[in-house]
Amino acid sequence: MSEISEEMRRTEVESREWYMAAYAPEGVPTSDHLKLRTVKISLALDSIPDQHLVLETLFISLDPFLRSRMTGREDGLCSPQYNLNEVVSAFGVGKVIRSKDSNFGEGDVVICPFLPVAEYCVLPSQALTTKIDPDAGVPLPEYLSMLGVPGFAAWVGIEVIAGPVKAGSNVFISAAAGAVGMYAGQLAKIKGCRVVGSTGSDEKVKLLKEEFGYDDAFNYHTESDFDAALSKYFPNGIDVYLDNVGGEMLEAVLNHVNHHAKIPLCGMISGYNKVWSEREGVRNLLNLIGKDVKMQGYMVFSYIDRFGDFTKEMESHLKQGKIVSKFKIINGIEKFLESLGSLFTSSNIGKLVIQVK
Amino acid sequence: MSEISEEMRRTEVESREWYMAAYAPEGVPTSDHLKLRTVKISLALDSIPDQHLVLETLFISLDPFLRSRMTGREDGLCSPQYNLNEVVSAFGVGKVIRSKDSNFGEGDVVICPFLPVAEYCVLPSQALTTKIDPDAGVPLPEYLSMLGVPGFAAWVGIEVIAGPVKAGSNVFISAAAGAVGMYAGQLAKIKGCRVVGSTGSDEKVKLLKEEFGYDDAFNYHTESDFDAALSKYFPNGIDVYLDNVGGEMLEAVLNHVNHHAKIPLCGMISGYNKVWSEREGVRNLLNLIGKDVKMQGYMVFSYIDRFGDFTKEMESHLKQGKIVSKFKIINGIEKFLESLGSLFTSSNIGKLVIQVK
Repeated sequence: MSEISEEMRRTEVESREWYMAAYAPEGVPTSDHLKLRTVKISLALDSIPDQHLVLETLFISLDPFLRSRMTGREDGLCSPQYNLNEVVSAFGVGKVIRSKDSNFGEGDVVICPFLPVAEYCVLPSQALTTKIDPDAGVPLPEYLSMLGVPGFAAWVGIEVIAGPVKAGSNVFISAAAGAVGMYAGQLAKIKGCRVVGSTGSDEKVKLLKEEFGYDDAFNYHTESDFDAALSKYFPNGIDVYLDNVGGEMLEAVLNHVNHHAKIPLCGMISGYNKVWSEREGVRNLLNLIGKDVKMQGYMVFSYIDRFGDFTKEMESHLKQGKIVSKFKIINGIEKFLESLGSLFTSSNIGKLVIQVK
Repeated sequence: MSEISEEMRRTEVESREWYMAAYAPEGVPTSDHLKLRTVKISLALDSIPDQHLVLETLFISLDPFLRSRMTGREDGLCSPQYNLNEVVSAFGVGKVIRSKDSNFGEGDVVICPFLPVAEYCVLPSQALTTKIDPDAGVPLPEYLSMLGVPGFAAWVGIEVIAGPVKAGSNVFISAAAGAVGMYAGQLAKIKGCRVVGSTGSDEKVKLLKEEFGYDDAFNYHTESDFDAALSKYFPNGIDVYLDNVGGEMLEAVLNHVNHHAKIPLCGMISGYNKVWSEREGVRNLLNLIGKDVKMQGYMVFSYIDRFGDFTKEMESHLKQGKIVSKFKIINGIEKFLESLGSLFTSSNIGKLVIQVK
């Protein structure tokens, strides 16, 4: 409390924030596109509008879809583009340090789906999704991971779009050691499926098998003949493919699908840094017809009415230790740009978050 | 009756039949692949096994998917390949001229999903789907068209996979003047949709608008910038795309889909004559994610449990004149090969059938 009281005496803070200096139609965004600047945020209560809060950022979630908000084009993932010269935003966890809304008190910790990538911000209180219960005993980054977008994306893919998944189904997951993949595989295992993942290093192959309970896994760099790899790991074909990468791997999968297979399309990271006409085309969609296959893309926000069901199920798995998480936590908001770039190099394991404070 | 009696005295007929001489992995099959020969069929009752019938072929249905049974590969549409040196088969209508099954009498007319492309054949009676009621007053080719595979394919696409289709939806249909397209468009119009089709000639554009009730249509040869064409014909985007062609047109459509659009994949005629790795790739599947789009392939045989519902609805439309058909009827079984090739040249209008007898 003494810390908050001291803060209460401050009337202004300096806040570093990342803003969109120029759009990046292709390639990984660089310091030409995203720049860090320092702004001043007033903490004087009379300067804060009603129903607004001042937040101090605790954690920022790094998700591949953020990339699609930086192209300057309203295509592909159809996320709204960040405005030029304005601070960018991401899923995050923040602490209330000033409140002009009686539902929030100083010290409350909140989850915000569009938190500015900044040390401090002023937001309308309705922009916050949930106040976190400090007695729940859940580590804060978990709200951005197992109980956040990646966990929800995994759940929608496996339980809603591919569901109901039958025990014994052959499930393949790409980018399997990534934030979505690690939960998707564990959810499919809970349903009694045989689960195989592809990932980008031998270390991650080991992790998938030893920590996430995958039945098998392969490194797509060393087993780069995807068709041969899928023949080897799926002698009985593929019933469910949760696609996080698109392109060449999706094409290979379509030559191994079983009748009535389901393909939830969660992401296509292989294409995010390319304009669409330069992406790898998928040439064998005819297999969708011959095998009566459903391929369905989804944005998790479209399933927000199921978030309650998801939370209930995931919290139960979390408490029983049936699903585990792996984090890579980066310290310091100044690391945002390079951390974003690292999402596209398969160098990360699990969920990438920035700890700001 | 006198004709049947006369036939009854015959103990043998000559029958011309088309057989698979060699597979055609690529290109349109030629006389190197499909050959005509004459065989003898015994009509002596004691030579016919129990529960078998001898049929005289009346009509043969020409459908693009037949092409996929001639590649020598079990891929794509995963229809079983025709055996080498054996007669090929297709949907057809035949007349019973000898019966060793008490459920069938000489003169009965039957529909058979795997009728040999031959003038006469001996078949187990269980290979026949339905005995036609001569009092129904339905022209026989209609059983291969509105009430057959093309009508059923259109119905499954619009009513089951894209369904329920809302009134006012923007529906696009490729190969719209083809056998499936003509019914799909009319079904969507009955549901109150706005329907636009693409087709291969100005004559067919006219037909779509004047006879099949399409709201609009374009010739993909003259409006070959598909993206521009779709911008023009779908200023409010596309809610349903019944795809009969695949490739470049499918890719263009994906840049115009609305949120929650549905894409039943009925056929991909643009790719049937190519090995899959040489087909045009679709590079913008990412749009499926951003717009929450469902793309689902289907083989009509997988929905055979719905055939009764379909027949009931279609017969009602037929009797009320709400849906009309267009046929191209070719005379003579010797025309099978060139007629099959014509399916891939966009030279036909409506349903192509061969009248054998």
